[in-house]
Amino acid sequence: MATKYSDLELAINTLVTEFHKAADDGPTLNTTQFQTLMSNQLPESSKTLQGEEGGVAQLLQQMGVPSGGSVSFENVWTLINHRAVQLFQLQKGKENSVKCSCLLQ
Amino acid sequence: MATKYSDLELAINTLVTEFHKAADDGPTLNTTQFQTLMSNQLPESSKTLQGEEGGVAQLLQQMGVPSGGSVSFENVWTLINHRAVQLFQLQKGKENSVKCSCLLQ
Repeated sequence: MATKYSDLELAINTLVTEFHKAADDGPTLNTTQFQTLMSNQLPESSKTLQGEEGGVAQLLQQMGVPSGGSVSFENVWTLINHRAVQLFQLQKGKENSVKCSCLLQ
Repeated sequence: MATKYSDLELAINTLVTEFHKAADDGPTLNTTQFQTLMSNQLPESSKTLQGEEGGVAQLLQQMGVPSGGSVSFENVWTLINHRAVQLFQLQKGKENSVKCSCLLQ
């Protein structure tokens, strides 16, 4: 019998799976793979980065990636955490509305 | 025109939305709301906890929740991070297989 997973479990699975796909099943991402992940999966943030000189290098530094090093799952998780907290803060501002609108912005 | 979100964006949205739903759109969860979230969204972990005396109290402590305090999004995020890293480690062991099977276990 197939196990039925909850929305939360499936979401965690997606986060991990997208990293594996981007890494081509390797343990880490190189800078090109990371940039592809960003433009495919976080296109809005990716657009902002392209407009800034040294934007990608700065982002990698914020994620704890050593200069010239490869990007680990933990590094990407730092970015995901940042996005989730941003979204949470946005939605908290709307908590008096009848329904949580849960829009990504 | 409706914006089309990526799988990664939708997954981050699900994580935040499930917290809001469990908190009944409040800023934090009380212990009962947290236990409901666990049994609905992480049923396997929830079952393990039920079998252990003081299991929930111990888990809350690991998540950084002060004794008797309410559960914040950051606390739940610690738990999600833990689950994601567990899943990542599991899948890393399978990285030589042709396709990442990406099963939640």
